[in-house]
Amino acid sequence: MVGGGQLARMTQQAAIALGVRLAVLAARPDDAAAQVIPATTVGDEKAMDDLRIFAKQCDVVTFDHEHVPASHLRGLQAAGVVVRPGPEALIHAQDKGVMRSRLAAAGIPCPRHRIVSDPADVVAFAVELTAGAPPPRDLFGQAAASSPAAGPSGLATPVVLKTTRGGYDGKGVWPVRSADEAAEPFRAGVPVLAEELVDFRRELAAVVARSPSGQAVAYPVVESAQRNGICVEVVAPAPDFPDGLAVEAQRLALAVAAELGVVGVLAVELFETRDGRLLVNELAMRPHNTAHWTIEGAVTSQFENHLRAVLDLPLGSPVAVAPYAVMVNVFGGDPPDMYSAYRHCLSRDPALKIHWYGKEIRPGRKVGHVTVLGEDVNDLRGRARHAADYLRGNIDD
Amino acid sequence: MVGGGQLARMTQQAAIALGVRLAVLAARPDDAAAQVIPATTVGDEKAMDDLRIFAKQCDVVTFDHEHVPASHLRGLQAAGVVVRPGPEALIHAQDKGVMRSRLAAAGIPCPRHRIVSDPADVVAFAVELTAGAPPPRDLFGQAAASSPAAGPSGLATPVVLKTTRGGYDGKGVWPVRSADEAAEPFRAGVPVLAEELVDFRRELAAVVARSPSGQAVAYPVVESAQRNGICVEVVAPAPDFPDGLAVEAQRLALAVAAELGVVGVLAVELFETRDGRLLVNELAMRPHNTAHWTIEGAVTSQFENHLRAVLDLPLGSPVAVAPYAVMVNVFGGDPPDMYSAYRHCLSRDPALKIHWYGKEIRPGRKVGHVTVLGEDVNDLRGRARHAADYLRGNIDD
Repeated sequence: MVGGGQLARMTQQAAIALGVRLAVLAARPDDAAAQVIPATTVGDEKAMDDLRIFAKQCDVVTFDHEHVPASHLRGLQAAGVVVRPGPEALIHAQDKGVMRSRLAAAGIPCPRHRIVSDPADVVAFAVELTAGAPPPRDLFGQAAASSPAAGPSGLATPVVLKTTRGGYDGKGVWPVRSADEAAEPFRAGVPVLAEELVDFRRELAAVVARSPSGQAVAYPVVESAQRNGICVEVVAPAPDFPDGLAVEAQRLALAVAAELGVVGVLAVELFETRDGRLLVNELAMRPHNTAHWTIEGAVTSQFENHLRAVLDLPLGSPVAVAPYAVMVNVFGGDPPDMYSAYRHCLSRDPALKIHWYGKEIRPGRKVGHVTVLGEDVNDLRGRARHAADYLRGNIDD
Repeated sequence: MVGGGQLARMTQQAAIALGVRLAVLAARPDDAAAQVIPATTVGDEKAMDDLRIFAKQCDVVTFDHEHVPASHLRGLQAAGVVVRPGPEALIHAQDKGVMRSRLAAAGIPCPRHRIVSDPADVVAFAVELTAGAPPPRDLFGQAAASSPAAGPSGLATPVVLKTTRGGYDGKGVWPVRSADEAAEPFRAGVPVLAEELVDFRRELAAVVARSPSGQAVAYPVVESAQRNGICVEVVAPAPDFPDGLAVEAQRLALAVAAELGVVGVLAVELFETRDGRLLVNELAMRPHNTAHWTIEGAVTSQFENHLRAVLDLPLGSPVAVAPYAVMVNVFGGDPPDMYSAYRHCLSRDPALKIHWYGKEIRPGRKVGHVTVLGEDVNDLRGRARHAADYLRGNIDD
């Protein structure tokens, strides 16, 4: 597995059970995964030589992030290395422009979008949005929310700009309302994608795993709460979600996996619009934060199914083992005494499952997560949020 | 953790989640645990120097077996090392004679027993058994099963001889029916314990975890099937087991843990007699085969609770997450193609959980286990046994 973060670290738990010898290419010897995996190579994921040396010991190479350049992956393939997912699939998780055009061509519902070349182009795209396919109408058939008659520096309607490459966890994404604000994204020097600002009810994620042979399994669709573009909380399954729409979300994710030839876990982040449609937001081709709950909450965790998929082993059951699971991320904060906070949480809730990534604590950094399973989603939310807040030092009782 | 076997290997899965840095002292660099734990020291668990060097990096030293001499453990303690469980407790899992006399003194129900010095002493013990507290009587008040009037070379009643030290997995245990058969155990040169041959309905195990502070949790009591003294199958909870007796078994295990000052997991192996009594058979003070089902089947696995206990962290909930769990051990055999068998089992039963220990396959060696959870214990038994048999190469369909 290329990348030594918490995803590789948690994959090691699954590898131990399966009897799979997991090796990682980690940037630093004290990376989260390097702490728990003997077969750690310290190297640069963007250096072809480091990748080549690392891959020599591997039957299959897979990833805990999307940062390896596609050209390097093709180079590895040319040298006989089995790379899963392959670069032809992975490019859709690396480049939002390529992803959008491919999904749109395949008829997968996406927000309206266009590659834009400068702020003036953004202004034009906003006008297109208001003039083009009409937004959801109210009972009188009028698009009431946004007015094309915005002021001279305002856009006809707000849009979202994204650098097509290099963004993650909210980085590389700008909601903009004026031509002035639209200047920033172009400074990165990579193509910029403009998208409509979706009026969503909430964000969802449909996570699937797919084998080279085409076998696939779909996990229950979850609700994912984000703050500043970073996932903070996941409820599985998404509450108050009509069965029909849940099946549609799973089918959509399976269709994306098949269309792009994904091998391994694919997370499809979705918007549920206020008028009951599903639109694809982002793709990730690796174990994903929105499925950490599967470690305790599903018969087969996403980490185990990722390993099974990339090794072309039969996939395991994705069925949930409890009515609800709630996962809340723990971010680095400034608790007066982290170990006391950790003890407090274990003591307060004997059914709380803590996952600690072994990372140095820095404010705002994801350093762990907590999961609770049960029947009452409000109770679970309360317990998981309390633990995460307590561990961060936000509360002390 | 001293010992690099499958118990340390599975403890690593729990350590990863808790953020605990687990180190092992392993006999060989390719031991089951050494494969998955970077902080592996290769050394001899019976060599004081190796133990001392290993312990330097540890806040707490614990064990995946009972083979470290008590004198060495006291030496480590004298050097300031925190050893859990301590030698005063562990001796009761190392020496069956010490265990029997201590438990008997504490009023814990045990089979009738005595240290014997030679085969003639065994003959005398057998006579004592038939003369002493009467065995269960039939409807006519007669002890029908065994006759004191055995032939010249026969014992008055069969007895079980055990070397007090060094036995495990059925080694060091001899059921004997004659003075001739009674000679063998004395050849090992260690004291020999004689016990009545208990007429049991089945074997059970009550597993608990206990902290230095005295906090303790009890797992559901399980039924354990043995073959040649080796655990082959565990059903959790024990089916058709009256609630009252289950609570009695848990209380008994908690009493033993408190009486002996155990820290960590304690497994109390029990006989359920045909007349509805519980008798203590063996003790183990480490994660135990009869609780492997807790990895998927309980809110907190025995491995996590062992770590929490020896680190004096609050213990986790031992509650089961499904009505039944069945675990079956996989023994090395002669399958025509082990990898195909492994694939077959994953494919046939997507809810089967395989745990593969990474050991070289040798006939009769424990190389893994399988667990299934559900409601129908017969269905679960069938599925788990099929997988274990298939993996061993006993069946091919």
